[in-house]
Amino acid sequence: MSEKSNIILVGRKPPMNYVLAVITGFNTLNTEEVVLKARGRAISTAIDVAEIARHRFLKDLKVDKIITGTEEMSQEDGRTRMVSTIEITLRQ
Amino acid sequence: MSEKSNIILVGRKPPMNYVLAVITGFNTLNTEEVVLKARGRAISTAIDVAEIARHRFLKDLKVDKIITGTEEMSQEDGRTRMVSTIEITLRQ
Repeated sequence: MSEKSNIILVGRKPPMNYVLAVITGFNTLNTEEVVLKARGRAISTAIDVAEIARHRFLKDLKVDKIITGTEEMSQEDGRTRMVSTIEITLRQ
Repeated sequence: MSEKSNIILVGRKPPMNYVLAVITGFNTLNTEEVVLKARGRAISTAIDVAEIARHRFLKDLKVDKIITGTEEMSQEDGRTRMVSTIEITLRQ
């Protein structure tokens, strides 16, 4: 997570890495909202991150909004395929 | 999907199997809502199902509500582990 942004891109690392980014985000930024973004297989990880953060660490945390979408992704062979995306807004 | 229920449990089959269940659900049941339920890795598949259904097949379909949760799952060795869950309500 960049120092100024409240958006966390969830990828292939273990969920706890992103949970820490969520906690750090709320503690260091002057923000009530942190947004998790993920696509494809990482969507499950993003849900894990939200669930672990609010059940184990930040009891006041709420899942405020979940938006799903579809993006075109270019592949190495030049073709494109569709991939699902998710945006989870966490509010404290 | 049972003939009377509008709940589809998303598991490890390819997304299109569940997309067909969604379409069948809206066509054969007298319902405005079909609910996709999934847990763990299948959460990404459930999002794929919702996205494919509404972009490719049912243009009026809306993602009405997404609820996330955590469940305890018993493992074969007798221990339990936490698993994330999702419930996606589709409305037409």
